[in-house]
Amino acid sequence: MNSPALSLRHNHFLNGGSALASGIRLPRSISSPFRVRMSLQENGPSVAVVGVTGAVGQEFLSVLSDRNFPYRSIKLLASKRSAGKSMKFEERDYTVEELTEDSFDGIDIALFSAGGSISKKFGPLAAQKGTIVVDNSSAFRMDENVPLVIPEVNPEAMAHVKLGSGKGALIANPNCSTIICLMAVTPLHRRAKVKRMVVSTYQAASGAGAAAMEELVQQTREVLEGKEPTCNIFNQQVPSCDLPSQCSYAFNLFSHNAPIQPNGYNEEEMKLVKETRKIWSDKDVKVTATCIRVPVMRAHAESVNLQFENPLDENTARDILKNAPGIVVVDDRASNRFPTPLEVSNKDDVAVGRVRRDVSQDGDYGLDIFVCGDQIRKGAALNAVQIAEMLL
Amino acid sequence: MNSPALSLRHNHFLNGGSALASGIRLPRSISSPFRVRMSLQENGPSVAVVGVTGAVGQEFLSVLSDRNFPYRSIKLLASKRSAGKSMKFEERDYTVEELTEDSFDGIDIALFSAGGSISKKFGPLAAQKGTIVVDNSSAFRMDENVPLVIPEVNPEAMAHVKLGSGKGALIANPNCSTIICLMAVTPLHRRAKVKRMVVSTYQAASGAGAAAMEELVQQTREVLEGKEPTCNIFNQQVPSCDLPSQCSYAFNLFSHNAPIQPNGYNEEEMKLVKETRKIWSDKDVKVTATCIRVPVMRAHAESVNLQFENPLDENTARDILKNAPGIVVVDDRASNRFPTPLEVSNKDDVAVGRVRRDVSQDGDYGLDIFVCGDQIRKGAALNAVQIAEMLL
Repeated sequence: MNSPALSLRHNHFLNGGSALASGIRLPRSISSPFRVRMSLQENGPSVAVVGVTGAVGQEFLSVLSDRNFPYRSIKLLASKRSAGKSMKFEERDYTVEELTEDSFDGIDIALFSAGGSISKKFGPLAAQKGTIVVDNSSAFRMDENVPLVIPEVNPEAMAHVKLGSGKGALIANPNCSTIICLMAVTPLHRRAKVKRMVVSTYQAASGAGAAAMEELVQQTREVLEGKEPTCNIFNQQVPSCDLPSQCSYAFNLFSHNAPIQPNGYNEEEMKLVKETRKIWSDKDVKVTATCIRVPVMRAHAESVNLQFENPLDENTARDILKNAPGIVVVDDRASNRFPTPLEVSNKDDVAVGRVRRDVSQDGDYGLDIFVCGDQIRKGAALNAVQIAEMLL
Repeated sequence: MNSPALSLRHNHFLNGGSALASGIRLPRSISSPFRVRMSLQENGPSVAVVGVTGAVGQEFLSVLSDRNFPYRSIKLLASKRSAGKSMKFEERDYTVEELTEDSFDGIDIALFSAGGSISKKFGPLAAQKGTIVVDNSSAFRMDENVPLVIPEVNPEAMAHVKLGSGKGALIANPNCSTIICLMAVTPLHRRAKVKRMVVSTYQAASGAGAAAMEELVQQTREVLEGKEPTCNIFNQQVPSCDLPSQCSYAFNLFSHNAPIQPNGYNEEEMKLVKETRKIWSDKDVKVTATCIRVPVMRAHAESVNLQFENPLDENTARDILKNAPGIVVVDDRASNRFPTPLEVSNKDDVAVGRVRRDVSQDGDYGLDIFVCGDQIRKGAALNAVQIAEMLL
């Protein structure tokens, strides 16, 4: 990891990016109903962040701070390897502590993003001790006792979880592609009931972690210099890749690296299928998805084809979306201006455009839309912090 | 245009690419039935290439040479600006000539790729003089008197066009996305009849021409150096883009730059809808498409969801594809190995994978597939040369 690549990642992609973000003028949505304007304060909850050194862990801190999330204390937890590191948060210095079984004593809310196996081991343990765990991994998403929540979509699913009751709980954050898709589709579903949904994704490097983003930068640099691209991250994830040039991510795209299930879908695709059903409490909704990784840094795009039970014309759909929380409509046909991943990077809102009547369906029973959302922010950290805000 | 960018483009993307193409081991399809093993020869046709200095024009020459297309003479035509340039073809030196009304005297076959307005002006004129024009522009595709041909799909459409009859003709090459999609879908359509098709594309820079490929390289370089990206090509094509960072193509993607039609679809999408109907001679087939440009150099990818009239299980579908001309199946679930644009770059075959029963449809009436094909080669130059080969 050379320093130019690192500084590029930090300056331009992970944390905003002067060159890329400057001048990106995306209208912001109306203030979220979950927004609270407080910060370090005596009567706030005690908070722990698990996996604080990762891409999402870092974004948890940014989002907590941006939204002035009130907290009595904050504990930064990571693996043994990162323990002892010092980290600044809201003008104070903290030391990263090793995650252990004792980490959750006295913790009210824990935000987890350290992978499924850490969540499986420490999530239930923390909940037993009275901590409310908001988990960003897939470990508990399909557990029928664990609510799977997008605050704008199904806040009722976590109505029984109360902060200060002394009872801990697990709440699961949906997968990034599901959050971004359902943020846009749910307002339309409420009006016209989605019967069937065909999704094709254009997913960013960030979903595979900070190291993957790093490798995309490094590979791109190498390809531009005429060198063979380094292929460590995606070499591991695509086991057949024995030659770097075969699995280059720079100037290329590939079927999502999640394992393929017996039905031929990869896990990422089946998350969209299954999580949609759980979040909508609708076992019958039909969903298919094709998930593809594209050489984009931190925001996902999704092409979504919708079939409705009831008619919904495109103008009504656009109006519904304009009034939906957390959604911004970018749909300027005259100047060919629609959502792009770069424009939603580091933004809270999910952008929707290309709203049009599907010419392959009769009448007003079908729509095509194109959606973009920041994978690390609304696709992960922001959604988790919004869940925590609902507990306050 | 600095020389590193140029050499990168030429070495790595336009003409094969040692670093990128080395080690890419994609199985080649069975020899095309249209392949002919001859070259410069007295009884071959006289050929003209119109737009010879463009990306597709250059590829016409590569493909003619690769396939030993027989020709008595070859004339290289371009705009006044490029006239006088010298160019080597099969070991001989040629001078690029300015395209004029007299250019087609004595020409048997002309391959056009110089934009729609040049085709509209010179195509009918050449045909009147007895030349058979294979036109890569969209100018005549939907003209009911002009056959729109993919040789593997609907060769019968041009059965009435005869070389040596003294009668000229226009034959249209379909749009790149249509060719790549229908190469894969037609063999399945023949078996089970497609009722409805939902396509989302991942389109390469090459579709916007050599200058766009150049700009993608330049922008990527600039972004990696922390500079504002140069935005000339896509600035023109996305008129609203008044700030370079808004229309950066590097590490970004965007809705295809073709103009939006009154129905909300862009022209590129409607080409897929309309050309499919014409090529299959099926006015009733339902097609919808969302066309997106991704930062990939020269091969398109397409996620295609299919609904069939008759049942077709995924194993049968895979077998049909394995035996289809010009198709290679890359569908290794165990090692997560599927088609990528990089692997099909500079290849003739269209690669198909992710063949699976659509879980959103009942029984065996639906499939999802993922398709990749070289935009400049099968998506343009190769298909046109194959059409010319059918005339021999």
